[in-house]
Amino acid sequence: MPIDPNALITITAYDWVPDAGRGLVRDIRVRWALEEVGQNYAVRLLSIGQQKEPAHRARQPFGQLPTFEEGEHTLFESGAIVWHIAERFPGLMPDNPRERAKALEWVFAALNTVELPVVEYVATTLYDASEVWFEPRILAIERRVDERLQEVSDRLGDSEWYGKDFTAGDLMMVAILRPLKGFGLLETFPKLVDYVERGTARPAFRQALSDHMANFTGSPPLAETAG
Amino acid sequence: MPIDPNALITITAYDWVPDAGRGLVRDIRVRWALEEVGQNYAVRLLSIGQQKEPAHRARQPFGQLPTFEEGEHTLFESGAIVWHIAERFPGLMPDNPRERAKALEWVFAALNTVELPVVEYVATTLYDASEVWFEPRILAIERRVDERLQEVSDRLGDSEWYGKDFTAGDLMMVAILRPLKGFGLLETFPKLVDYVERGTARPAFRQALSDHMANFTGSPPLAETAG
Repeated sequence: MPIDPNALITITAYDWVPDAGRGLVRDIRVRWALEEVGQNYAVRLLSIGQQKEPAHRARQPFGQLPTFEEGEHTLFESGAIVWHIAERFPGLMPDNPRERAKALEWVFAALNTVELPVVEYVATTLYDASEVWFEPRILAIERRVDERLQEVSDRLGDSEWYGKDFTAGDLMMVAILRPLKGFGLLETFPKLVDYVERGTARPAFRQALSDHMANFTGSPPLAETAG
Repeated sequence: MPIDPNALITITAYDWVPDAGRGLVRDIRVRWALEEVGQNYAVRLLSIGQQKEPAHRARQPFGQLPTFEEGEHTLFESGAIVWHIAERFPGLMPDNPRERAKALEWVFAALNTVELPVVEYVATTLYDASEVWFEPRILAIERRVDERLQEVSDRLGDSEWYGKDFTAGDLMMVAILRPLKGFGLLETFPKLVDYVERGTARPAFRQALSDHMANFTGSPPLAETAG
């Protein structure tokens, strides 16, 4: 779907983030969902820092991205936005109640059970390597991530998706496992590597990623350039 | 609502946990939701350890509590279960689409944005006080929790609930803020103290808590008594 400044739906995204964050800012999840259900959207670009200003806080109480606006209504939290899109437009939520429940539980499992240790692992690895407590912490976190990956790999088994078809639950699981790529841990679970590969090979994801990357047209904030 | 062994809905709960965990195990969220919508339920009690055995893993891939069974259908993740209950029975989800969206975003905000630092804070305070990295870690986590509490307090303002009426979103926010009581941080936000007080004063919560506590009829596992 083309990005359309006159679309009824508007999301927020950054005009610049450091290289390590490109492809990972959470607007990618919402773009992906909108692509899957075939909806045009407009993008309101924010510079780093603007997300904490009152205008954006009115949209998002935590001063974060993404948000979803349709008419006068604003929605925040990527999980809530993706679930709302899945309810509103066909394509991400099966009609069958049992399959629909599976989509629901995997959206929550992704955001509450899997993402917590994954974010801790990635952030600690990237930012805390010089801290005195790095070694004991990273080993403890690695064990937790490894346990979670084993569990989600076991439940997936040889299936293509967690339910019969690709749903909002898979979208969120793939989005949350993606940042682990290249650190080595995910790579010990071939079924999960294939799962992430399958998800990110979808045309909707590729379009979303391409549009996400194309929005980084801004400059770093002053503090970054001064360093 | 009475707990009824012949009810159509069955949840899982522990028959014993250490004192510090009593009142906080996540089945409380599901019991509370069922009380709010006036549904009877049966309880399948597990001893510590059983949650990791194959019979329970079949219900819950992470070997955790709670689960929700109705007929042949099992649902896991407390967020998914509470949202499912809110969709299925009247009482926790407003009809108005805007109010319904608010309930949805606060369920996700509670579980993905607020719970993460809260759990880290409580767990680090209780279990890691003797670690070499305790001091620098706890200060960093405290700053994050404080920031989140300021944000949720600001958004709540002088309102009773996050929407017009009490919803699944408030249920989850109150459930997630409750464990902070007594550590001192929550107490610096009087509006949140009152909010948690309002939520836990509801008859449905009081009944859920009382039934949750009454199920601790088991004994500690061998490793606990041997220590």
